[in-house]
Amino acid sequence: MKRLNYQTPADLNGLQQDAQTADNAAISQTVREILLTVQKNGDDALRQYSQTFDGVTLADLLVPASTIQAAYEQIDPAVVASLQAAADNIFWFHEKQGLQSFEATRPEGKFGIKVTPLERVGIYVPGGTAAYPSSVLMNAIPAKVAGVSEIIMVTPPQKEGINPAVLVAADIAGVDRIYTIGGAQAVAALTFGTQTVPKVDKITGPGNAYVAEAKRQVYGFVDIDMIAGPSEIGIIADETAKSAEIAADLLSQAEHDVRVRTFLVTTDADLLAAVTAELDTQLATLPRAEIARQSLTDFGYQILVQTDAQLYEVMNAIAPEHLEIQLTEPLAALDKIRHAGSIFLGRYASEPVGDYFAGPNHILPTSGTARFSSPLNVTDFQKMSQYLYYEPAALAQNQGAITTLARTEGLEAHARAIEARFPKKEQS
Amino acid sequence: MKRLNYQTPADLNGLQQDAQTADNAAISQTVREILLTVQKNGDDALRQYSQTFDGVTLADLLVPASTIQAAYEQIDPAVVASLQAAADNIFWFHEKQGLQSFEATRPEGKFGIKVTPLERVGIYVPGGTAAYPSSVLMNAIPAKVAGVSEIIMVTPPQKEGINPAVLVAADIAGVDRIYTIGGAQAVAALTFGTQTVPKVDKITGPGNAYVAEAKRQVYGFVDIDMIAGPSEIGIIADETAKSAEIAADLLSQAEHDVRVRTFLVTTDADLLAAVTAELDTQLATLPRAEIARQSLTDFGYQILVQTDAQLYEVMNAIAPEHLEIQLTEPLAALDKIRHAGSIFLGRYASEPVGDYFAGPNHILPTSGTARFSSPLNVTDFQKMSQYLYYEPAALAQNQGAITTLARTEGLEAHARAIEARFPKKEQS
Repeated sequence: MKRLNYQTPADLNGLQQDAQTADNAAISQTVREILLTVQKNGDDALRQYSQTFDGVTLADLLVPASTIQAAYEQIDPAVVASLQAAADNIFWFHEKQGLQSFEATRPEGKFGIKVTPLERVGIYVPGGTAAYPSSVLMNAIPAKVAGVSEIIMVTPPQKEGINPAVLVAADIAGVDRIYTIGGAQAVAALTFGTQTVPKVDKITGPGNAYVAEAKRQVYGFVDIDMIAGPSEIGIIADETAKSAEIAADLLSQAEHDVRVRTFLVTTDADLLAAVTAELDTQLATLPRAEIARQSLTDFGYQILVQTDAQLYEVMNAIAPEHLEIQLTEPLAALDKIRHAGSIFLGRYASEPVGDYFAGPNHILPTSGTARFSSPLNVTDFQKMSQYLYYEPAALAQNQGAITTLARTEGLEAHARAIEARFPKKEQS
Repeated sequence: MKRLNYQTPADLNGLQQDAQTADNAAISQTVREILLTVQKNGDDALRQYSQTFDGVTLADLLVPASTIQAAYEQIDPAVVASLQAAADNIFWFHEKQGLQSFEATRPEGKFGIKVTPLERVGIYVPGGTAAYPSSVLMNAIPAKVAGVSEIIMVTPPQKEGINPAVLVAADIAGVDRIYTIGGAQAVAALTFGTQTVPKVDKITGPGNAYVAEAKRQVYGFVDIDMIAGPSEIGIIADETAKSAEIAADLLSQAEHDVRVRTFLVTTDADLLAAVTAELDTQLATLPRAEIARQSLTDFGYQILVQTDAQLYEVMNAIAPEHLEIQLTEPLAALDKIRHAGSIFLGRYASEPVGDYFAGPNHILPTSGTARFSSPLNVTDFQKMSQYLYYEPAALAQNQGAITTLARTEGLEAHARAIEARFPKKEQS
């Protein structure tokens, strides 16, 4: 990790990785062609792309119920039980969320907002080693809690079959149908619909560069979740923090990807030295040590600050996706944090507790977007419609104000629509 | 308007305008260059572009307080009073909105969501005839209610000065600073910051194709509101509806733009004939008749249905931005509407009541995106941070489930981070 002695906010320049802009012209053009082809040729195009990109000849696109039931027998019962326990916690936390409808009455009339769930959503689940059953839970459960009628999952076909833990997680979370399609073609199918795959209102879930670009291109036809950048963790620690635990938590993030960013911010120089030593020790036996070491070398930062206030000054500037508070009084920190996706308070709130189990979501804003974005949550699967009922007397009383504003903007027909309600002579 | 006798949902194919995909390579490239230039040259670039695109040599970018105060004297006091009355209603409706923080405690620990406002937002207001003071109120008030610390408005410089009604609306709504910059360069300044213009967390408001493309390109660095397509209105009417009022309401939408879409859906063929006659009569004296006539000819639809159920079947398929219910019992319709941006119930809820005055927002999802998007509202200027505090005993109890899931996903360092809390021998 790189060492930084923080004095002023300018010292952080350069740490801030720019948000993702997937602006690769070749990928963009390939994706455009795939979208058009699926829109035109439907299922035939999906089968063709599966043959070309996945090397799989598909009979059915839909995964049959029997395959999903069989998946339960193919994995360790402890995994099934752990997924079920995690799902219970995730349901519990998400059931406390969501937008509420309201109606307010006053002499002018009734005014309200009606909240409804999206009708159908699509969840993209990557194939291979990036097929995380925990992400299936985290994507599908908020949609289920919101009341989405139909949750469609797509995942690339695999010669060896879909990861059974992914199928079990989908079943536990309440996914309604699973199709073995992947890549930009899966995003196209969910956006435009094919003979087999129904079109959806929103597509969520991570994918490779083609999937990300496809989501970017279909945004507007359907809604999407934000396109995620590399993951990141920030840790605020004082001299009471345990260096072995801090190091383990940094590694748990760094093992994901060489582009992961890690930030350890403290007032205690000794802790930094101890963590550095611990990292070396723990890396020695870590299966994914190569990835983690690269990530720490390129994007790992140890930041020494002078005051407690600077702990928060630095971390609010970073706006990390995950933020651990390893302080003597962790709960007192909450008020001082302005920007973070998910905050882990205290020694026993190690990040994997939240990644897998505790209940809060693990799909979080990355790359500093916690300044303006939220964790995936129930409101992401709801929408609002406004409504108003207006009393005749209120319109009569306010028609002058309304027509004045309309005419100020040069929109005469707007003014006349109001005046049409009060004609000189009643018309039918 | 085109006449359609509705039988089945397939009859609506072709009416559905595709959502906007601003995919013009030349615009895209120009915008990319402008973004890079402003990022590099800051204020100098803004002055250069104002000279080139607006023909204005700027001294200060910031509109001084004296100019804003003077604007009150330059417009009819009735306009000031109407803007103030509208703003009061918009504040009233939006103060009922917003996400709520929560915290839930159970034996495992504390779990919550902390809701905070965005810190700084930018509002784009077009110049010339598209400078609508009502849109300034509708953009700024939800941000103000959310508790945004600083609302920055940008609007293109005009040789004749900024529209004073726009300045007054900004002042009433609580805009903190106004800069006379426009186009993609204004979006760039708000995204990256310059010597004068501070960077913001979100940019809202409509603009021309360059502004829309710039917002698309900066999405991810900052948040944006959805890029709006042409406006649209749907009207559900029965035989009790007044043809003159229906026609006036259709025209109030059609006068905006030749690409506006209008849909009149009814069980009463006589109403359609009467509305057609009324449209001709009213168009004869309408200042913007040319635009309205073109819009009605190209994108106006009169749809005759056989049953009351089909009224809603058709309208839910269209998912209109604005929806008027001109039925004998308008309030009873509310439960049957699944997709609409803003719903106007009854004879006296003519659309301009909501456009200008009643309190609900007029920035609404267009082009069928009401299936998954909401009117601009207070939650658009809020974000959530999750948090969790976990008890030591709970981690001890659940460590098996957590490490099982981590190892199932091949993420050994995640499992070890949990186990680091329970070492064989305590470490420091």
